[in-house]
Amino acid sequence: MANSSTNTGIVHVPAKDLITPDHLSPAAKASLTMAKIPSTYPQPSNTKAWKALIASTDQFLANMAGTAAAPATLHTEERNIAGVRVYIVTPNNLPPSDRGIILEMHGGALIYGGGETCRIMAQRTATRLRRRVWSIDYRMPPDHPYPAGLDDCITVYRALMKERTPREIIFKGMSAGGNLIAALALRARDEGLPLPAAAVLNTPEVDLTESGDTFQTNVDVDSLLRPLMPINLMYANGHDLRHPYLSPLFADLSKGFPPAILTAGTRDLFLSNTVRFHRALRKAGVEAHLHIMEAAGHIGLPGSPEEEEIDEEVRSFISSKWQGGGNAVAQL
Amino acid sequence: MANSSTNTGIVHVPAKDLITPDHLSPAAKASLTMAKIPSTYPQPSNTKAWKALIASTDQFLANMAGTAAAPATLHTEERNIAGVRVYIVTPNNLPPSDRGIILEMHGGALIYGGGETCRIMAQRTATRLRRRVWSIDYRMPPDHPYPAGLDDCITVYRALMKERTPREIIFKGMSAGGNLIAALALRARDEGLPLPAAAVLNTPEVDLTESGDTFQTNVDVDSLLRPLMPINLMYANGHDLRHPYLSPLFADLSKGFPPAILTAGTRDLFLSNTVRFHRALRKAGVEAHLHIMEAAGHIGLPGSPEEEEIDEEVRSFISSKWQGGGNAVAQL
Repeated sequence: MANSSTNTGIVHVPAKDLITPDHLSPAAKASLTMAKIPSTYPQPSNTKAWKALIASTDQFLANMAGTAAAPATLHTEERNIAGVRVYIVTPNNLPPSDRGIILEMHGGALIYGGGETCRIMAQRTATRLRRRVWSIDYRMPPDHPYPAGLDDCITVYRALMKERTPREIIFKGMSAGGNLIAALALRARDEGLPLPAAAVLNTPEVDLTESGDTFQTNVDVDSLLRPLMPINLMYANGHDLRHPYLSPLFADLSKGFPPAILTAGTRDLFLSNTVRFHRALRKAGVEAHLHIMEAAGHIGLPGSPEEEEIDEEVRSFISSKWQGGGNAVAQL
Repeated sequence: MANSSTNTGIVHVPAKDLITPDHLSPAAKASLTMAKIPSTYPQPSNTKAWKALIASTDQFLANMAGTAAAPATLHTEERNIAGVRVYIVTPNNLPPSDRGIILEMHGGALIYGGGETCRIMAQRTATRLRRRVWSIDYRMPPDHPYPAGLDDCITVYRALMKERTPREIIFKGMSAGGNLIAALALRARDEGLPLPAAAVLNTPEVDLTESGDTFQTNVDVDSLLRPLMPINLMYANGHDLRHPYLSPLFADLSKGFPPAILTAGTRDLFLSNTVRFHRALRKAGVEAHLHIMEAAGHIGLPGSPEEEEIDEEVRSFISSKWQGGGNAVAQL
């Protein structure tokens, strides 16, 4: 036992090379060596450059989520809800009695993942969770900073409430989607709307100030994600990053939040986001369950049995919380 | 978004200096700058040198746990149970009807923490959990390698079963104590003994092979703990490190394990141990709850409100699981 700390509180960590842990499944090992996504640094200098970066990153995200062709096991439709595009993805073998809806906000750092990429990611969610998914193709920067995207989310939620009871709805979001879905829960609460049956928060970006410790400890350890402050500032567009609708970690959660399941990985840049939000929910008396995937960075371990285990936790949690009808549908 | 990974799976992490996160409480910040414990490297070359290192480390651990004087709020006695010394610590204001017992194996890397240090750490546990604690002063290397310590544990558990029902007993262990308490549950199960009401596993050393990813990612990030292989090999004394009684992570947990609560920190060298054991328990169908403390290394954040929050989770979990009588006793 020894260390490199001093009494100043500065901990010096020498350079190191991380190998892929041998105990992981072959699929998990392969996912740890996946190609990296386009860099946000140096920061684009104008809107055109941002849009070019967004286009290339969207292609990367779409490739990671799956093929552009809709799986034959799913039915996908596009609806316009009060001006907002929503992709509705339904597993073909979902029993007709199943009224449950996963209301999803897609990930992508609050600027990526719109349009076709949103559709493809929604199909992946429907496949993994074996449920009907409504995924909101919300507006994003550079053209539409906060609160445009959140406005779109609440517009769709209000419309959905006319078709379903709150107990038939589950909120879900990964990364930036976790930011928006948590902000939506807070804003719905503040506006007197009922809360959904539960929330699924996968490595959620709940703190745009990036104050968590893994924003330093897991830099370069997480091979997908680096701090996103240039994007956060573009999204906030002058609003205080600490406002609860921008950083739900700083909300008064004791005033209400749905029961939640939270997931992240040990190499995840957003590990602190996740465990801090878990603690904040528990401190506020909200039911909350934490699951951490060994060696996973922000993207998880796509296609691995380790990720399937986490998906099963999420499916079980949803089944226990909603009245959407039935349990998991047959294997897709 | 960029990274330093290549397609070989090697992730290069440049040197970095970690600061103490500003959002932590003053007490948590102070605990992150605490003195480091004596080094195990270079490895002592003989038994005498090991014993000198153990003596100095025990003094460090005792200082960290509290003063040598027993708190006035506690009653401490020493019992000899079939040749094994057990410290029994009872809060003075525990209601007479409270029959519950926390059966604790102390931490200390499987070689430290015996004798007086065991007594002081047991007093700290009784104060934090507000319960009666039986802490086993089990035999350790260099004189008494595996299975001596585990033999002591099962000897005491067998004796305790004559005084209490299993539903009145909670297993608890931190670090090396988590190794022994998990191994005890497995061995008790294998020997046909009933299991206790639940298990509390604080940053447990459940894998003596040290195969988890945070054994590389959190080296030098955790300012208390470094890998312990020289000690693990001394403890195993030639036995296979992967045997479930040495590394409970590799056990078949579907054959039975008590409901468990697991805690660790994001800087913790044993974060992988903890999250992997959580997943192994869940996969085996065992009830298991995970709580991760932001920025905490292996030692936690002693004396901080952040740690008190975790203690409250543990107290609530115990209250929900056992029939030890009553809920938390009055504040100590």
